Amino acid sequence: MPELRQNIITREWVIIAKERAMRPHEFVRAKAHAAPLPAHDPHCPFCTGNEAMTVGETYREECDGGWKVRVVTNKFPALSSEGDRVRNIDGVFRSMTGVGFHEVVIEHPRHDLSPARYTPEELRRVLTAFRARYTTLKNDPRIEAIIIFKNHGESAGTSLQHPHSQIAATPIVPTQIRHRLDEAIRFFDETGLCVFCTTLGYEVNQRQRIIQESDSFVAFIPYAALSPFHLWIFPKRHESSFDEISDDETADLAVMLQAILAKIHYGLNDPDYNFSIRSIPAHEGHREYFHWYVTIIPRIARTAGFEIGSGMYINVALPEESAEFLRNVKLP
Amino acid sequence: MPELRQNIITREWVIIAKERAMRPHEFVRAKAHAAPLPAHDPHCPFCTGNEAMTVGETYREECDGGWKVRVVTNKFPALSSEGDRVRNIDGVFRSMTGVGFHEVVIEHPRHDLSPARYTPEELRRVLTAFRARYTTLKNDPRIEAIIIFKNHGESAGTSLQHPHSQIAATPIVPTQIRHRLDEAIRFFDETGLCVFCTTLGYEVNQRQRIIQESDSFVAFIPYAALSPFHLWIFPKRHESSFDEISDDETADLAVMLQAILAKIHYGLNDPDYNFSIRSIPAHEGHREYFHWYVTIIPRIARTAGFEIGSGMYINVALPEESAEFLRNVKLP
Repeated sequence: MPELRQNIITREWVIIAKERAMRPHEFVRAKAHAAPLPAHDPHCPFCTGNEAMTVGETYREECDGGWKVRVVTNKFPALSSEGDRVRNIDGVFRSMTGVGFHEVVIEHPRHDLSPARYTPEELRRVLTAFRARYTTLKNDPRIEAIIIFKNHGESAGTSLQHPHSQIAATPIVPTQIRHRLDEAIRFFDETGLCVFCTTLGYEVNQRQRIIQESDSFVAFIPYAALSPFHLWIFPKRHESSFDEISDDETADLAVMLQAILAKIHYGLNDPDYNFSIRSIPAHEGHREYFHWYVTIIPRIARTAGFEIGSGMYINVALPEESAEFLRNVKLP
Repeated sequence: MPELRQNIITREWVIIAKERAMRPHEFVRAKAHAAPLPAHDPHCPFCTGNEAMTVGETYREECDGGWKVRVVTNKFPALSSEGDRVRNIDGVFRSMTGVGFHEVVIEHPRHDLSPARYTPEELRRVLTAFRARYTTLKNDPRIEAIIIFKNHGESAGTSLQHPHSQIAATPIVPTQIRHRLDEAIRFFDETGLCVFCTTLGYEVNQRQRIIQESDSFVAFIPYAALSPFHLWIFPKRHESSFDEISDDETADLAVMLQAILAKIHYGLNDPDYNFSIRSIPAHEGHREYFHWYVTIIPRIARTAGFEIGSGMYINVALPEESAEFLRNVKLP
């Protein structure tokens, strides 16, 4: 019989399709062998020497005669950094000026890498850039939420191959984030506990969905994972927003995130994926009830009419098997 | 400047990326010319003569020596019709037996059609099958929500080409449906009005996003459409769940839905799409605050890390332009 599982953090139900479930190795897709990318592409706007092709640099980690990480304004920003938040209400039609920030983090000078092939130190620099920009953006009074995310591969929504991630800062709290905040507050009101810390405690205790644990972080497949290899990384220390991460934790997360992305890369034959870093709304500060975390979604399953019509997912992978599979991937 | 719009029904914000917006004709994708399908495929489980390849028939519209529409149990059901709802709570881990229904509506005996090429009468038969099954399933005390949906094309999640749609009946109210119910109740408490009827009144009054209007239905692009050509069809009469549709309304909806799907087919070069019919939870019955409707989502845009991290969408089409484009598509 199929099983329904509810994620206590998001309150979302998922159908774990046990009879239809595929074994982990069945998710490994054959890929057309693509020609290797060059280390430098003279036409790529993110490659060294082409800095003039990008605009609005907001961060740079320098090195001898060059840079290691840069953050620039998205050339086609979804939100505009100029102007005020102006609301317009005309009956049921509610709008607001699209102010905010939409930045691109150029993660590495090299054109042909991805985080799975970085050194942990290279990924630490990227995370440090995320933190610096997060800290700056949250102080803009127009900003309510900051979403850090990466699209890896075409089906995950990227068109440029040079390794990059993005930061969006919105002038409203997105509804989904508001709902999750409400759930976390409700749990706190009932128990006096953080629902994230509580869940992490249970997961670490059960161990079967844990992929990797370090001094400061735990990577696991959530009990009610929405799709195959849907994965969360939680800080062990209770922190509400990403900019609370310390230097030591940043270095620790870099090691873990690099290892997890490498396990996905080598174990599942480099699938497309998205990751995002979720935090409490920007103006909330540190709160006992909310916890930031990283979510990684390999783009292995497709959403269809059922997901659109219900908001609910059907997962054809067993979370326990997915975790065991990733735990056992040996890195080169 | 980009514009943020809030959908008053779902409370979701969307970024209307005005500067990045594409004109409607730019969404027409070239398609590899596929060999035409045969009218009958001897290996297709949904073709006439192969009825033994399907199981658990729950509905059939007979005709001379055959059938026009059949409903059968999905061969790989995501939910099982046998058994009781049994909850298990173990700390933060909450599960339930996956009881429910997962049926396939075989819309037409012919293998090579899609609703865009049906006659309205053929689509009326499909809608009549939906209604019959909805009515039966809602009387099962284990069922909380019934979602009717169609996946057209591979990127919309279908693998079988024979025209079919699906009905899923779940033993819980999906979180998204619960949230929307809560919003509708809140609007009703504040105003004494149905938020759907109210929105429809404003849309009909403004006219600019209306695609088509009949005696009983209005098809329009919502003001805060989430993606290009995201489209809603509302019944004009206040009805909370799909089984409240009358015979006349069913015939009227068939004409409209067929025309809209044909406009999408011919105007946008047969893109993949999903549609779903959303109703109030099964046990609620008729309520003043909730209204059933059809949502259609052409699979033209891709979701990426921003949508995953925020639950918020970026729409690169202007709803007003999308509506004008579809309004002007001439059908053959």
